Amino acid sequence: MRVRLVAAAAAFLAILATGVARAQADLLPSWNDGPAKARIVGFVQAVTDKGGKDYVAPADRIAVFDNDGTLWSEQPAYFQLLFAIDRVKALAPTHPEWKTKQPFKAVLDGDMKALAASGEKGIAQLVMATHAGMTTDEFARVVKDWLATARHPKLERPYTDLVFQPMLELLDYLRANGFKTYIVSGGGIDFLRVFAEERYGIPPEQVIGSSIRTKYEVRDGKPAIVRLAEIDFIDDKAGKPIGIQKFIGKRPIAAFGNSDGDFQMLEWTTAAPGARLGVIVRHDDAEREFAYDRNSHVGRLARGLDEAPARGWTLVSMKSDWNQVYPTPRR
Amino acid sequence: MRVRLVAAAAAFLAILATGVARAQADLLPSWNDGPAKARIVGFVQAVTDKGGKDYVAPADRIAVFDNDGTLWSEQPAYFQLLFAIDRVKALAPTHPEWKTKQPFKAVLDGDMKALAASGEKGIAQLVMATHAGMTTDEFARVVKDWLATARHPKLERPYTDLVFQPMLELLDYLRANGFKTYIVSGGGIDFLRVFAEERYGIPPEQVIGSSIRTKYEVRDGKPAIVRLAEIDFIDDKAGKPIGIQKFIGKRPIAAFGNSDGDFQMLEWTTAAPGARLGVIVRHDDAEREFAYDRNSHVGRLARGLDEAPARGWTLVSMKSDWNQVYPTPRR
Repeated sequence: MRVRLVAAAAAFLAILATGVARAQADLLPSWNDGPAKARIVGFVQAVTDKGGKDYVAPADRIAVFDNDGTLWSEQPAYFQLLFAIDRVKALAPTHPEWKTKQPFKAVLDGDMKALAASGEKGIAQLVMATHAGMTTDEFARVVKDWLATARHPKLERPYTDLVFQPMLELLDYLRANGFKTYIVSGGGIDFLRVFAEERYGIPPEQVIGSSIRTKYEVRDGKPAIVRLAEIDFIDDKAGKPIGIQKFIGKRPIAAFGNSDGDFQMLEWTTAAPGARLGVIVRHDDAEREFAYDRNSHVGRLARGLDEAPARGWTLVSMKSDWNQVYPTPRR
Repeated sequence: MRVRLVAAAAAFLAILATGVARAQADLLPSWNDGPAKARIVGFVQAVTDKGGKDYVAPADRIAVFDNDGTLWSEQPAYFQLLFAIDRVKALAPTHPEWKTKQPFKAVLDGDMKALAASGEKGIAQLVMATHAGMTTDEFARVVKDWLATARHPKLERPYTDLVFQPMLELLDYLRANGFKTYIVSGGGIDFLRVFAEERYGIPPEQVIGSSIRTKYEVRDGKPAIVRLAEIDFIDDKAGKPIGIQKFIGKRPIAAFGNSDGDFQMLEWTTAAPGARLGVIVRHDDAEREFAYDRNSHVGRLARGLDEAPARGWTLVSMKSDWNQVYPTPRR
């Protein structure tokens, strides 16, 4: 009797385990079978196998994701820049001086060539004029309203629809395996936090990004945090490992990026003992998304492409590794 | 039969509920019954009561704790300053110039008056000389070694023994009720992270503190993060709400401090709609710990004391609210 009970229990556990394994494989339905998917799944199995040599305790299962070009699209320009452009247009009536002042004039005239000519300094001016001078609550409301109404110029869908379905699945899959998932983006931390929780399941405290300085102020007994027109931190390139150390204080074991802005983040993550995963998403699908790498003004990928093989980083081809790019439109 | 089964189930659930309530009350054994404990427990019950008007979803149950003077002692000086002093002594053989150069000379001569006279600038020099110029990994190792061997000058116990037992219980109690607990300290973020997880159950990513700038460097193909002798962020006074917004991106619902350095953190936390808890730990127990407030050079508490009643903040008396201060020494 006892033996039969034990056998029954073992059979039950086996069914359960098979079910878990099958359920887990099903967590990545938009990924085609191939070396990229196999590498990701193999890594996750290795670090979660309690008896295995590559086992990593759940507290150290930190996975970091770039956002622009890795979790959502970034063409024809970073979506946050498109937000700044829309904001300049919306705020123009209260800024008559912008009609004659660059880079604002370029934006109002729709003259992208003149805007590009204004360079980094011009972009910084745009960002400050549209991202500073209000409280953090006010800024979050402005971003939220914009995301709810704005549409991508070419794809004509809300920007938050232009997230990558396979990456959403990957985030869920990692979390189902005890990973803590972080965004580590060159984009603005407070811009990202508005939609990261709803769209990616990543709460505000797991979003790392570029920031401007803020000031604590009490007006009529009501405290507020006011956004200042001053750069605080640029979370890009060598800034990414620094942001990771600052916010997380632990070295990740998996990193996902798409451009040379993510190079140091992948390097920091993977140049350490133990099982490590570095992944680069390649934009090679002009039909369903965009195709660009070495010569792009946005999301340039050259060094990462050259060094990926020697560094053991996995290249994901949007074209051949993904059977779906964007989520099926919601009704 | 059915009725009896339902009655039995109800009785079972009642026993279970009583058990849970009793188990929860038992989570604070070092707290004497009184208004402070009642206020804390009442707040936790209110925000976790799913049907109640003050219910707060687990994701928003953010509790922030000052460290020096709130989670552990801070007399006769911040423990991190005592660390810096010990480090100067340890490093002195390789710095012969310190024998004649202030504030180092003061430290080596044990001349606390001269050290105090060197002011904030002198302290900053001490901190930079002992906290910068190495990688983050190297610094963590130095702090770890110091914590393992150093003893408090008066109490003759390891510094990590001088944490407050009632606060350890409070951290556990809050986490058992779905809270996420953070440290928000004027002390150094990388100093705190060395022991916060083991001692307080607070992982590195939930530690916010003051920081110095860092640099990402690759030497012989090995990346490292190097600590620079430059202030990055001072997480004190109005810096605390700013640090909270930067790292967490959400407004806490409970804040615990002990000095005027925590005033803005308590203000930011409690001056918002919904149930809020602000707590100030009072050092009024000269026998078991230290007694100080308005006139102390460390942990000065004046404005907080004056305004606590009008702001609804709870004062915790170490003397009368705690039946134990430090954990029972480990063997």
